[in-house]
Amino acid sequence: MSWCSVKAVVLAGGSGTRFWPLSRAHRPKQLLPLWGGKTLLGATLERILPLVGWEGVLVVTGQHLAPAVAEHLPKLPPQQLLREPCGRDTAAAVGWAAWREVSQGGNPVLVVLPADHWVGDDEAFRQVVRAGVALAQGTNGLVTVALSPTRAETGYGYLELGEVVEAREGVRCFRVRRFVEKPTVEKAQAFLAAGNYRWNGGIFAFTAQALVAAVRQYLPALAEGLDQLVELAKAVGEEEAVQRVYPSLPQISLDFGVMERASNIWAVEGTFPWQDVGSFASFAQLLPPAEGGVSLGSVVAVDSANCVLLSQGPLVAALGVEDLVVVATPEAVLVTTREQAQKVKDLVKELERRGLHRVL
Amino acid sequence: MSWCSVKAVVLAGGSGTRFWPLSRAHRPKQLLPLWGGKTLLGATLERILPLVGWEGVLVVTGQHLAPAVAEHLPKLPPQQLLREPCGRDTAAAVGWAAWREVSQGGNPVLVVLPADHWVGDDEAFRQVVRAGVALAQGTNGLVTVALSPTRAETGYGYLELGEVVEAREGVRCFRVRRFVEKPTVEKAQAFLAAGNYRWNGGIFAFTAQALVAAVRQYLPALAEGLDQLVELAKAVGEEEAVQRVYPSLPQISLDFGVMERASNIWAVEGTFPWQDVGSFASFAQLLPPAEGGVSLGSVVAVDSANCVLLSQGPLVAALGVEDLVVVATPEAVLVTTREQAQKVKDLVKELERRGLHRVL
Repeated sequence: MSWCSVKAVVLAGGSGTRFWPLSRAHRPKQLLPLWGGKTLLGATLERILPLVGWEGVLVVTGQHLAPAVAEHLPKLPPQQLLREPCGRDTAAAVGWAAWREVSQGGNPVLVVLPADHWVGDDEAFRQVVRAGVALAQGTNGLVTVALSPTRAETGYGYLELGEVVEAREGVRCFRVRRFVEKPTVEKAQAFLAAGNYRWNGGIFAFTAQALVAAVRQYLPALAEGLDQLVELAKAVGEEEAVQRVYPSLPQISLDFGVMERASNIWAVEGTFPWQDVGSFASFAQLLPPAEGGVSLGSVVAVDSANCVLLSQGPLVAALGVEDLVVVATPEAVLVTTREQAQKVKDLVKELERRGLHRVL
Repeated sequence: MSWCSVKAVVLAGGSGTRFWPLSRAHRPKQLLPLWGGKTLLGATLERILPLVGWEGVLVVTGQHLAPAVAEHLPKLPPQQLLREPCGRDTAAAVGWAAWREVSQGGNPVLVVLPADHWVGDDEAFRQVVRAGVALAQGTNGLVTVALSPTRAETGYGYLELGEVVEAREGVRCFRVRRFVEKPTVEKAQAFLAAGNYRWNGGIFAFTAQALVAAVRQYLPALAEGLDQLVELAKAVGEEEAVQRVYPSLPQISLDFGVMERASNIWAVEGTFPWQDVGSFASFAQLLPPAEGGVSLGSVVAVDSANCVLLSQGPLVAALGVEDLVVVATPEAVLVTTREQAQKVKDLVKELERRGLHRVL
């Protein structure tokens, strides 16, 4: 196995509105200094670089975020920063990367990495990725990292594992029997008890050609659009071709559009500590217990419990409250409950509707 | 009745920590622009000036707040601003004013006005004050304004009215049978039903000599201290005398120390709309209904109810919350419940204990 034939496809597209007001239109979630100055995007790169080096990284992001991403990653060669003129979800983003590689005559194993994951053991993570790459090369299939569930989480999709196959790089490998969409609590509890269910975190490995073939089979409209893009790029250059074609691509996730439909799906077991950082509730799980719940920044809590209290500006003083999420910046303060925190996205839409662009 | 013999004693001493973080050590509650730039102190003066003019005003405040008060009231002659080196509650503050007048050979009727009241009809208020002054002069007793209760409030003291006496200036006057400390809900409901109970708001009228006599009778230690102060002032000047004597004065309220103990208590009926502005909960009653409850400043509320949302800085965005009090300034954000809001005073003490002086 040659490591020159591996490329990490880092998905850094969204602006993470569920992290508002920490995230802002010009300050997306993946560029926030969440842990002592370290960003989610920076941590993602740091985690994979020992395997692929800067020459083996592709970062897909929104055109409007590209300058900030480029500034944040000065060592990333400009042609490896893929700028989407508009978001078209992960099938288009990963498809673009695969089509691009194949059209340039390559067939690397693509390792798909969302930029909003926290991983508690980078070396264990890389071991699993090595196994995934080997499995993808060996099977020519689509490989997902099967994450060990630690609770009956209803916010993730699950994988039902089939038979164990030969281990790679010391990591257990499986056939995947099926993908299961976000379950009910009862189902999640049953999955946890059953033992052969894992979380699907959206970390994948496959050769570029295998992905192209799967997209052709399950998402023909996307395949057609990407064919066009590659053709047009030869005439007018990639940048111009993307501007013209990308907006017309179908908007669908790789999970839903390809992984859940395909049959040659494999899994490598990811036992490293893992957490997505999609919302304040999930971010809170990464913070140590503090006065009043968990907190970050300038916070005082009195007679308070189970709160998520974050400040990047004014002192937050909580008095006699429970189960709240309070996020303060110099421009805006969010006050909601742990339960309602998932609706911050809708709140941001409402602020937009009201023309409050100065805080977005 | 000569109006030259009336002086308003405006009590503007406290910094209003229950209004933190709107109020700050250097920005006390009574100087906050709460309604379109108008302050509580400014509104109090505006309300009484048509009766007494600037020459008839005494403002008692803390030494540390005096520069801000003087700046806010440029027309107040400096010798009419009484600076307390430390807070000794209302008996000492009003006693000082009374001793001062008497020692200067005067015997005006003193009208005691807390600086944190909202009044909905200034002309009706002045009519009641005129009646109170006439009653105080006519009876040589201690007169309180009996405020009409509009709810079974447990946060105020009550007055039990006795027989009606001759009306003054068209306002009903009564003997006061007794003062009742803040009651239970059951008692408050019974008072409301009984019809002869009123709120005691802390607005009083009496001649300076009547107050001096009552203090001599019920608070002899205070009387002794004020005698000393006046004597010493002749030798070293009032400022120096106050510095030396004031800290040793007993700390007790005029209500508890004098009014509840005295027998020659009278009341004038105050039917004007009235509200104290002691806490966010009481302030909230003065704000019109808004999205999510009541609000002031830059606020958005979605799926929220019965909240008090105030901002003098960052946008406050409430999502799916109820019964909360959120108060945001550029330096600090308070998040508490309506029920806990009365404990903000304790929170401020806690912040002080932790050395967070930059937000106090």
